[in-house]
Amino acid sequence: VLGLDPDPGGLWPAALTEAGAGPLAADKPEAFDRVGVADLTAAAVARHCALAIEAAGEACVAVKLQLACFERLGAPGWRALEATVWVAREHGLLVIADGKRGDVPVSAHAYAQALVGSTPSPFGDVPGLGADAFTANPLLGADALEPLVDAAAEAGAGCFVLVRTSNPGAAEIQDRPSPERPLHERLAALVDVLGRGSVGASGLSSVGAVTGAARPDLLARLRALMPRAVLLLPGVGAQGGAVDDLRPAFGPHPAAGLVTASRSIVGAVGERGGDPAAAARAAADELRTRTWRIAVAAASS
Amino acid sequence: VLGLDPDPGGLWPAALTEAGAGPLAADKPEAFDRVGVADLTAAAVARHCALAIEAAGEACVAVKLQLACFERLGAPGWRALEATVWVAREHGLLVIADGKRGDVPVSAHAYAQALVGSTPSPFGDVPGLGADAFTANPLLGADALEPLVDAAAEAGAGCFVLVRTSNPGAAEIQDRPSPERPLHERLAALVDVLGRGSVGASGLSSVGAVTGAARPDLLARLRALMPRAVLLLPGVGAQGGAVDDLRPAFGPHPAAGLVTASRSIVGAVGERGGDPAAAARAAADELRTRTWRIAVAAASS
Repeated sequence: VLGLDPDPGGLWPAALTEAGAGPLAADKPEAFDRVGVADLTAAAVARHCALAIEAAGEACVAVKLQLACFERLGAPGWRALEATVWVAREHGLLVIADGKRGDVPVSAHAYAQALVGSTPSPFGDVPGLGADAFTANPLLGADALEPLVDAAAEAGAGCFVLVRTSNPGAAEIQDRPSPERPLHERLAALVDVLGRGSVGASGLSSVGAVTGAARPDLLARLRALMPRAVLLLPGVGAQGGAVDDLRPAFGPHPAAGLVTASRSIVGAVGERGGDPAAAARAAADELRTRTWRIAVAAASS
Repeated sequence: VLGLDPDPGGLWPAALTEAGAGPLAADKPEAFDRVGVADLTAAAVARHCALAIEAAGEACVAVKLQLACFERLGAPGWRALEATVWVAREHGLLVIADGKRGDVPVSAHAYAQALVGSTPSPFGDVPGLGADAFTANPLLGADALEPLVDAAAEAGAGCFVLVRTSNPGAAEIQDRPSPERPLHERLAALVDVLGRGSVGASGLSSVGAVTGAARPDLLARLRALMPRAVLLLPGVGAQGGAVDDLRPAFGPHPAAGLVTASRSIVGAVGERGGDPAAAARAAADELRTRTWRIAVAAASS
């Protein structure tokens, strides 16, 4: 999965030029008013994402769009997000909206409309983002996840529930030892229950889990607790995880794990040099080859 | 605090008319194309929020904007959100962006830019929403909260961390008994630690907590664990909480608790009849009077 978390300060040079700004414009920020800056930046972000998809998309099954990176550009950023969804589809890629939303049921329902549904209004239906899947935060419990899970199932989409994230601080909340069991195991059990109603011919459910690659030691246990879940595995590359550690994710099916990489692909030029697009393509190809080898071996053993 | 979670299916009639649509247009949805529907709906939502602020704002200290309800209208929805922030400021109200964001540190930083900061780009800085405070989800732990808390402190803004939410399903995750202590108490301890560096002359910190009014029995204990936190108290009215139960929130200071009400004000016409704006004003006035009486009594006892 190609993770896109575009930083306007680190866009590919071609994106700045092709967004209609050009290097000269970038040297003269005082030439743009407040609205112009957001519009230009969002246009450059959209172009950057399109270029990354063109370069690395063929080695991927999906893009994972970090909503925070679009949201920070306001309404123009939301348009850049919509444009990126469109480009990803044109390239035959699934779209995972990574917003980690979670709220009380009535608001969770509104997030579901935003991500995979539509919103009825007196003027007609307002279409949402049309994502194929999204990430969700389970802190508010099962009743708050249900509107998201139900909307995903209805839309033929998927919901990835945070079970164990890949940042260092996650341990304090999610792993805390307890005579009962740590929170991440209770969340895994919840994912399994929520997903039982939507298992497809592959044996996999539309309710998956985010299980950060930074704690591969947990994977076998989490896989046992969620035998039907597709596991979304961020943290490969920049966040320190290694693909070889992810074998348990693929036990039920070669598609039961989705390895996501962001900076290690889009920023591959930093290590590899040369052209950013060529470096991204090479990094994505390598990651695909390594992942698929492990996925097939794990699923057939 | 006036909670605004606008549902396009339940807007005040005046908002539909004043958004330029008129009742006739609303009767003929086939007259609008896809983009027109989102734009018209967002315009009506913005007008609805402005009317609610005009009606009830004088009894309030802040608006709490449910981001999901704007986000589901795409880029036009984000513009409606920005317009509502502007109207709230014009009425002298603080703005709480209720998005319950939470992500790994690099993405949390991007959310902070979106909510209370700005995003540097080669074309200049892209301003964020400019909220005075926002809600945050602590499932990812302290390192993921820090970029949000730090950005809030730098902007002179506040961060309300979810400690105990007001939905029924919250109990399973947040209250689960444990020989150690339930998650909500650990989260409360985290809020206290994070907030110690930013205590103002009032004795209150810029790091607050969301503690749902649905569990008033917990409030005294949570207050003891977070003596410097402003407690954001949703769940009054539609979600079942009663103001009289909230006394412990106000112990340290009359402003140490913020009672938020959404549907019980904006939808007060359902119970009171008459004009929606007059009903909202009356409901907000009553809630203000009841709350302030309790706040002052609790803080001086």
